[in-house]
Amino acid sequence: MYQTETNIRVRYGETDRMGYVYYAYYAQYFEVGRTEMLRTLGFTYRQWEDSGIILPVKSLSIQYIAPATYDDLLEIRTILKDRPTARISFDYEIMNETGELLCTGNTVLVFADARTRRPTRPPAEFMNALSRVWKV
Amino acid sequence: MYQTETNIRVRYGETDRMGYVYYAYYAQYFEVGRTEMLRTLGFTYRQWEDSGIILPVKSLSIQYIAPATYDDLLEIRTILKDRPTARISFDYEIMNETGELLCTGNTVLVFADARTRRPTRPPAEFMNALSRVWKV
Amino acid sequence: MYQTETNIRVRYGETDRMGYVYYAYYAQYFEVGRTEMLRTLGFTYRQWEDSGIILPVKSLSIQYIAPATYDDLLEIRTILKDRPTARISFDYEIMNETGELLCTGNTVLVFADARTRRPTRPPAEFMNALSRVWKV
Amino acid sequence: MYQTETNIRVRYGETDRMGYVYYAYYAQYFEVGRTEMLRTLGFTYRQWEDSGIILPVKSLSIQYIAPATYDDLLEIRTILKDRPTARISFDYEIMNETGELLCTGNTVLVFADARTRRPTRPPAEFMNALSRVWKV
Repeated sequence: MYQTETNIRVRYGETDRMGYVYYAYYAQYFEVGRTEMLRTLGFTYRQWEDSGIILPVKSLSIQYIAPATYDDLLEIRTILKDRPTARISFDYEIMNETGELLCTGNTVLVFADARTRRPTRPPAEFMNALSRVWKV
Repeated sequence: MYQTETNIRVRYGETDRMGYVYYAYYAQYFEVGRTEMLRTLGFTYRQWEDSGIILPVKSLSIQYIAPATYDDLLEIRTILKDRPTARISFDYEIMNETGELLCTGNTVLVFADARTRRPTRPPAEFMNALSRVWKV
Repeated sequence: MYQTETNIRVRYGETDRMGYVYYAYYAQYFEVGRTEMLRTLGFTYRQWEDSGIILPVKSLSIQYIAPATYDDLLEIRTILKDRPTARISFDYEIMNETGELLCTGNTVLVFADARTRRPTRPPAEFMNALSRVWKV
Repeated sequence: MYQTETNIRVRYGETDRMGYVYYAYYAQYFEVGRTEMLRTLGFTYRQWEDSGIILPVKSLSIQYIAPATYDDLLEIRTILKDRPTARISFDYEIMNETGELLCTGNTVLVFADARTRRPTRPPAEFMNALSRVWKV
């Protein structure tokens, strides 16, 4: 498995009238989590897209446990449990500064050719980089 | 069961650089779906919140089948399959103008007291209104 | 001049912890206003973009007078005061259901060639359609 | 005057189908800029709001010069040119990693009592802290 952490400060516009982070924003936080995981391996999703590989999201699930509030400094933990195939599954955990678990989630994305939109294999350099950090 | 439909026009700011609706926005569309379902029964979520009942979201899941694009006129189908208890589960289907199914999803919300944040029973008038339209 | 009205229902995710519509969302409402104005003339911004004409925004200004709140049914009034050249200036007024003026604003956009990104003249059919409805 | 800088990485969901940051998001970036300026002075907007002082936005203006794109690391420069009264005016400049100026802007906010919503004087400790860093 491979796991990384990144931080996000909750913005005012991300809260709702209940005073909490609006439930859809966690999906955006998850995306920051997986983007920053790729960056730790030397890749950016921007480069992949520019080189013709896209990663459309196939599914999203979130379990909301406790609310995040304005100005909280959140930790987003992103976890790869299985080696990617044409399909890559990320798990997420979001904690606030006191270490309280606010939500867990999962997204499944698919490596696809930007032109044909057909599934494709993940870039070989990515799989190699992942092998070097993978923990059994 | 009880089912309603409502329409949404995709806004420019809801698209991303892939040219599709960004994956988090479907959660916002779902919320419009359930809000409008309540309205067909004579209730608004605003009134509930003002009267001390809140409906925090417990879980969200979305399966993405085909992308929505800018200016698409979407149909959001919102479905209650089970009579609510302190817990209310909404299913969703989103279709574009050609009738193509773009995604399915589910949210589970909990009726809670705004002050104590503890689970509570759904308003009796809501359950009565639901009984009048419920299809077996 | 040419003026149109369109309606928007405030979504939960558009509110912030103050209980009001977050100030950035009005820019999105303005965009719905100008998109729907174009539609009344028989044009869609999507078609323009697909045919190689883009309309990047050059400037935005908003004066906030009174807050919009959750579930408000807003009226967005969009006003063209001057005939477009390569530059098109839209004025906006947003009212709530009681007719209270919530904000005024302006955006200046530029007709540009999608490929070269250089300013270009507005489509002739658009100028003709505008002439037919223009009020002096 | 007093000036601070903060950085923001452009998120995927903030781009639109033109491939650029959607024009409304700059208002959210501005808010991050002013929030972080307050933090450099030892204050958080959250504390102010919790203690009964709110800062509704009175006006917003943005001049768009060049587009920000996905994954850009932006620098937000926030500038106070005038000492605040009940009214506080922030200027902004956003640059990308190559130092290119992408946009300039301004927001005017008003110190108000959260309960009465009436204008009030800025907190004395804030004015003192500002005096210590103010450059003529």
